[in-house]
Formats: sequence, structure tokens, C-alpha cells
Amino acid sequence: MTDHASFSPSRPVPLCQTHHWDIEADAVIVGFGAAGGACAIEAARAGARVILLDVASAYGGASALSGGEIYMGGGGGTPIQRAFGFEDSTEDMYQYLLASTGPNADAAKVRLYADNSLEHYRWLTAQGVEYKTSYVAERCVEPLTDDCLIWSGSEEAWPFAQLARPAPRGHCPKYVGLGGGRHIMDVLARHVAAAGVDVRYNARALALVADHNREVHGVVARIGGEIRFVRAHRAVVLCAGGFIMNRDMVRRHAPHLLRARYPLGTVDDGSGIRLGMSVGGSTINMAEGFTTLPWYPPGSLVKGIFINERGQRFINEDVYHGRVAASALCQGGERIWLLADQSIYEAGQMHAAVGIEIGSAGDTWEEVERELGLPRQALLDTVELYNRHAAQGEDPLFHKSAKWLKPLIEPPYIALDCRIDHCSYSAFTLGGLDTLPTGEVLDEDGAIVPGLFAAGRTACGLPRWGAGYSSGTSLGDATFFGRQAGRRLATTRR
Amino acid sequence: MTDHASFSPSRPVPLCQTHHWDIEADAVIVGFGAAGGACAIEAARAGARVILLDVASAYGGASALSGGEIYMGGGGGTPIQRAFGFEDSTEDMYQYLLASTGPNADAAKVRLYADNSLEHYRWLTAQGVEYKTSYVAERCVEPLTDDCLIWSGSEEAWPFAQLARPAPRGHCPKYVGLGGGRHIMDVLARHVAAAGVDVRYNARALALVADHNREVHGVVARIGGEIRFVRAHRAVVLCAGGFIMNRDMVRRHAPHLLRARYPLGTVDDGSGIRLGMSVGGSTINMAEGFTTLPWYPPGSLVKGIFINERGQRFINEDVYHGRVAASALCQGGERIWLLADQSIYEAGQMHAAVGIEIGSAGDTWEEVERELGLPRQALLDTVELYNRHAAQGEDPLFHKSAKWLKPLIEPPYIALDCRIDHCSYSAFTLGGLDTLPTGEVLDEDGAIVPGLFAAGRTACGLPRWGAGYSSGTSLGDATFFGRQAGRRLATTRR
Repeated sequence: MTDHASFSPSRPVPLCQTHHWDIEADAVIVGFGAAGGACAIEAARAGARVILLDVASAYGGASALSGGEIYMGGGGGTPIQRAFGFEDSTEDMYQYLLASTGPNADAAKVRLYADNSLEHYRWLTAQGVEYKTSYVAERCVEPLTDDCLIWSGSEEAWPFAQLARPAPRGHCPKYVGLGGGRHIMDVLARHVAAAGVDVRYNARALALVADHNREVHGVVARIGGEIRFVRAHRAVVLCAGGFIMNRDMVRRHAPHLLRARYPLGTVDDGSGIRLGMSVGGSTINMAEGFTTLPWYPPGSLVKGIFINERGQRFINEDVYHGRVAASALCQGGERIWLLADQSIYEAGQMHAAVGIEIGSAGDTWEEVERELGLPRQALLDTVELYNRHAAQGEDPLFHKSAKWLKPLIEPPYIALDCRIDHCSYSAFTLGGLDTLPTGEVLDEDGAIVPGLFAAGRTACGLPRWGAGYSSGTSLGDATFFGRQAGRRLATTRR
Repeated sequence: MTDHASFSPSRPVPLCQTHHWDIEADAVIVGFGAAGGACAIEAARAGARVILLDVASAYGGASALSGGEIYMGGGGGTPIQRAFGFEDSTEDMYQYLLASTGPNADAAKVRLYADNSLEHYRWLTAQGVEYKTSYVAERCVEPLTDDCLIWSGSEEAWPFAQLARPAPRGHCPKYVGLGGGRHIMDVLARHVAAAGVDVRYNARALALVADHNREVHGVVARIGGEIRFVRAHRAVVLCAGGFIMNRDMVRRHAPHLLRARYPLGTVDDGSGIRLGMSVGGSTINMAEGFTTLPWYPPGSLVKGIFINERGQRFINEDVYHGRVAASALCQGGERIWLLADQSIYEAGQMHAAVGIEIGSAGDTWEEVERELGLPRQALLDTVELYNRHAAQGEDPLFHKSAKWLKPLIEPPYIALDCRIDHCSYSAFTLGGLDTLPTGEVLDEDGAIVPGLFAAGRTACGLPRWGAGYSSGTSLGDATFFGRQAGRRLATTRR
């Protein structure tokens, strides 16, 4: 068992064939992104000896590339929410998350997350995550400034606004520019080091070590080129990201995500999920993914209307950008346009980067319709129906909120080309190992796989539905449930 | 290991803990539907000793409840196709199946199936499956007569007609009434008996027996109330159906199928798939399912138009009924109507049974629009746009073929209520174990799990996409790939 070509994440090494251990710890955590980092801190502080492996030569994973937003609120509001008059309730946060995490929502996870969101806020700030007391009222994907509070979901939009009182819950760290996830990871890494966690980079988990009953006892890893048997006295925790970079797995489990050309990930090769499956861990929700195209800001474009290649509207445009993209990807055909008139048109911050271009401009909507090659009257009917209702402050078809309704009647008229086969629609996966809120991995019978935990995108966590995604729920899930796993495993005894 | 409460399909029994075998055979087949029956016949004829277990007290499974259509053609046409002038080519059949089995199509399986479809026809008829030399030109779900050849997919409709020359390929057995699958199963069962297969009913496979390397050596089964260790010298073949009856598995893997209220299955509890997973078998396409609502016949209704609750059309109505249902289920909202005028309206054969009712009738479309509570002008615009183009024999939005286009201008006007939350939309699953065309089950690395085969809906076979399904592909897949597995395992040696 020393030829590492023979190891596969999908084949556990039998404990009875494991004759020595090179390294021993209470917990072996695979992956040093936000989930692995948060887990390591809590486990180590609770007295566990922790080894943290990452395949890269530095910490961060996809978390460090993210905007760093964390979805938080409830309980009367975080200090930032309260400073701007948002007295957010836990029940509103719970109801919003339950609805927006979709038909496969995990009510127990949503409940735990909402109930403890303020505690999580306090924990993050106590570690040193900085939040400026500021609020961005305008539509944005993430602020380029160091501002904090944003509307990062569809809280104010139909049907969610009807289910729960809206509040902005996206908390962006005090970090100038895109990529505030770097700040979150730097903070976590400082505490990982301070807590005495044994961090090993260039360390790939090749296979789990398990006994007959599929209880997990450790990991075989290649660390700095050497095969090492790493014993976990209490648990192995899989925090190795999702599978968006493993195109074969995407093809087999979530083929529609291949239409989004830009995968959001670093390693995310599915090996964490495969390691869990190898000992009977059950996977759920594997076909789901987050997809998006950052078509706003500017917020004025929310007053525009999206149409498909039949000239039909398909969404209330005041929802989160990812919900628009999820719906666009379901329309059939590649062509999607955002229609605007002169009064609302502005070039978007990210448009050039993601390939959104002006597809047509005309003095009349007839001209635009013709130029786009749409069937005669298809676009015209759509615009006329929209304009007629918008003039009365109504959108009976899709229920866009009145503040975003305005007839599109000021030429020139513009169709922004958001073609699926041309623009950089991005995606990451939302399926993974089935876990308890405490992080234990479950098998197909719903029983705990002894000695195995998972968190972050290796698990199927809080966010489960591309069409209902809110920014900050994936990183929020990773840090929050990473912490739960760390605390839980520290109390585990074999 | 005699307390059967301790067995789980998700936990293999270690070979090293298996101290005796109660029954021995070359092949142990789990499930006596079409796949298991066809597999048993071929394996036994090739010299293998075969034991065939079924949990029920009779053969049949979901296959016996089906219409019995088998999708066949190519090679110049089956005798029935040729008798009516359809000189079907293998390449046309291949291209149609490749497109209609969707983004996750398995080209190797499609190729093998198309190339050998005439051989499969000859095999079936040689066993005694009877086909009347008759052709039903009218739209139907399955004939109530003993007629044979039907259009059982979307061959003549956009976009499929543009990709392959259309031909009817649904072959229904000579059987009067619904449920011709019974005839197919009776024929297979006669040959299973004649080939000397040891059939055991009331026999539930509880777990696989596997060694350290997850090679499969047999099955633990409860047969007539007794726990029996059944050794498979060559292979275990899982033909135990899909998982539509296991609502927990559906919730975890294909939650959108829960919207279809009527599950099509018998056992179909996912245990076959779980048995395969327990030894590392990879599952694919688990979120996909077939869904339908039999809204035709009468074919005249194909001249109607479907609208969603925003009054928008969403499909070319000349596609297969299941493709319409798949699209209806994606529209958002529960309300779906089929609009017809006096000239094309007729009550459908199955309408009462599935809950399709007249939702509104009026002398003008305005009246219907109002009665349905649709936003003013939404339905009217849709009907006017459709009528204007239909009068010219065109459907630029959805490309319904000219033969089905006719302006809806003869009052009274009717909206047939096809509400998702009221009608009996039916469903079965299309995800399962990843297999080679020869039936061997693959693990996550794409390697064969030694000693394990799967066929029928326990495997992810030919049909993989609800939105492209054609009747006769599931039973066609089960019989055809069941045969491949039987032939292959008979040549396997350990």
C-alpha cells in the first residue's frame, strides 16, 4: 500500500491493511478554506489536537476568492443592521431562508443558522473580522468600497417579500475592492495558527482509512510528495469544496451547469465528496448549482425587462442576479436580452468583463425587434403589456415591486445581449454529502458514518437552490457549520 | 449475522464474515421485471445457472403495468414500419435518440441500441411477442385496441424533426386495452421457466456480500421469511426498478418530481440502486425523471395552445405529452391551461381519470381571460399573436408544425384546466447506477465494480431526460440492456 497510484478517493483503505500511522491527531481536517479554518479553530480551542491539510501551497480555497459577504441577521438585527434601522427578526430570517433555499431546504439547518446568526456575528468580529458601520442602499453584487451592509438576496422581491419582512443581511468585510473573502481567510488563518493547529500544505488526501463497518479512522495523504498515513482519533472532517472543477462529475450529476461557462472554484474537484461516498456517505441535491451573471449594477437596469428568444418576459427583474440567471438558463435557447430605454440605461460595472454587450439600439421598439430577428410583434406585445401596467405602478404578470416599475418609452431603446453561449455565466455546485447540522455525515439509511464530518461545499448545507440563492449564504454556511463540526467533534469519543 | 433487522441495502455484508452459503448459482438477478426477465433468459441460455429473486409474489414489476410499447426501428425499418412505408434508417434513429435523451445522453448506449434494434425486434418476436401489422396515425398515448405502430415521441416536432428524419417507432404488443406490458412479461416469464431459471418470489435482497476490494460475491435475501445467503459465482445483477416509490429518496435527489402527484411504480423503492452504491457503484442523473399528463388524444387538441399562469405560451404543442408536462412543471406556479376553440375541442379519453376539467368557457377570449383571473390582455396577446401567425401556417415562436396550426377563432372558447396541484401528473425516475452498455456497474473512478451488473431503471440507461422522453424507451432499454447483461455475465469468469 505504498504505491500511491493505487489510491482512489472512492476506495477506502481497509484499517486491517494499515500497519502503521505516520502522524496522529484527534481531528484530521481536509481543506483549509472557510469551513476547514473555522472547524479547526473551534476544535483546537475545545482541546482537540488538529491537523489541517490543504492540497494547495496556501490557505484560502474558493473562500478567499469570494466577495467575503456573510449572510447574517435576525434577533433584532446585527449592530450594523440596527444602525440603519433594520430591526431584523429571527423568524423573518428563518422564513426567508426556508423559502429561498428551495424545495430541498433543510429546516433544521435553517433554524440553527437563523437562531445563532447574531452569535456568529459576534464570533466573527471577536476573531477580528472588521465591519464598517455602513449601508449600501443601491443594488450591487459586492461593494468595491469597504462598505458593509448590502441587499444580497431577493428579500424585497416577490414572492419572498410576501413571506417575510425584508431586511438586508449581506455583511461585507471592511476591505477595498473585489474579493473580501481574502480578509476573512486571513483572520481565520491567524487563529488557526494561534490555536496550535498543525497545518500542512501541498497535502492531498488520497483516501480514507476505514474498518469493516466503515468507521473512519484516518486519511492517507500525499504530503510534500510523501505518502503519509494520518490517524484521526476522533474524526476526519471533509472541507474540500464542491465539484464544479471536475467537469466529468458535473456532466454526470449536474449537466445543465455546463452551460454556465465560467466555473467558480479553485480545487473543487469533488474529491471531498468522493471520499465521503467511499465509506457510505450519502450525497443529496447533486444536480443543483448556483449560477449567475452580474448584470447590475447599475440599479437603474432593474427597471428594464428581461426577455427570452421568443420575446417573452420570464422573471420579476428586482430579484437577486443569480435568480435571474437561473431562470434565463431554463428558457430554452441561447438568447436572452435585457431591454432598457434611454432613461435607465447605463453601462454596468462588470458588463465588459462578463461579455454583456449592446445587441441592438433603435429609435423604436419595432426597430429593436426587427434587428434582433424576433418574430414580428413578439417583443412589441411584451413591451406594450409591461408599459401599460407599469404606468399604473403594477406588474400583474411577475409582481416586480412598484419602485422598479417605469414604462420604457424614452428612445433610444436598447437590448443588452446576455446570450448564454457568449456571456460568462458563472457556476458552483450546491450538492454534496448529507450531514446533520452538527456536521456528522449520514449514510443512505440516515445513520451517522462514524468518525466522519463534512462542512462547506463538500456537504449539502444551507444554500441548496440556484434559483433562490443569496450572496453570503455559502460563506456563511461554511464558517457557521464548520464551527459546529469543530465543536461537535471535540466532544466525540470512540 | 442472522438478525435481519441488522441488514441494510446500503451496507454490504463482509465476505470474511460470511461462513456459509444456502444457495449457489452463477448469476443472482434481483428483480423480475422486463430487465431481470430478459437478463435471466440470455444468461441461462448461455449456460449460466441463474437464480431470479423478486420481492413480490409474482413477476412483472412496473413493466407489467406499462403500456408495453418498445421503441424500435432503424436498419430500413421493422417489418411493421416497412409495411406502412417507413424506411427508417439507423442513423436517423440514433440521432433522434441522442438528441431526445438530452444533455446527459450516453452515446455508446444509444449507438448500441440503434444498431441492434432490428435484432431486438426479431428476438422479441421469436420469443412470442406478437405485433399486429397495423399503424395508428392518430395521436395517442397507447392504443386501446390491439394495434401496433404509433408515434410515441417527438420525432415529427421541432427541434427533433430538424435533426433526424421522423419515423414512428413505438411498437405496441397485440393486446387489447391499456397495459400491454402484461403480454411482454408473460412471454418473458414463459422463457425464464423454459430456460430452467430458479425463480424465487417473496424474496427480498437485503444486502450484498462483498470482499475487501468490494468485489461482489452474493446476496443476503429474505426468501419466504428466512434469511438466505445466496452465492453468485459470476455476478449479481440488480434489476429492481427505480426509486419513485421511495419518497425520501425522491426528496433528496429529485425533489421537483414530488410535484407530480402520481408515482408510476410498483416496488421501485430504490433498494436496487442502494445495493449498488453500497459497494461503490456510482449513481448518475439522479435528479431526472419522466413526468406526464395524458392530455391527448384527441389529436385535435394538438391544435390548441398551452399557457402558463401569466398567459404565456411555453411549448410547441405537437411534441410528446411528456415533453409538454416537463415544460409545464418548469413554468413557475401551479396553473396551466390548454386553450381550444369549438372546432378542435373534444373531451379526452383520459381527461376524467387524470383530473383535466374545463376551467372556463366563453364566447370571447376576453371572457375566458377574465374568468381565469389572468391579467388583462395577457391571454389575448398570446392568442392574437398565435392566431395571426397560424393563419399563415407559421409558428415563429415555438415552431409547431404547419399541420397543427389553425387560428382559434370559433366560439365557444375553452380553457382546459391542467393545474399541477390538481391533475394527476405522473412520474418515474431516470437516474441510477452508472453502467457500461454491457451492464457492468462502474464506480466513481469509472472502473468496473467486480461481480456487479445492473439493468432497467436501477441503472441509468437509455432514457435520461424527462423533457425528451419517448414511450417505449424505458421498456426498450430494460429488455435490450437486460439481454446484454445476461450475455455478458455468462462469459465472465472469476
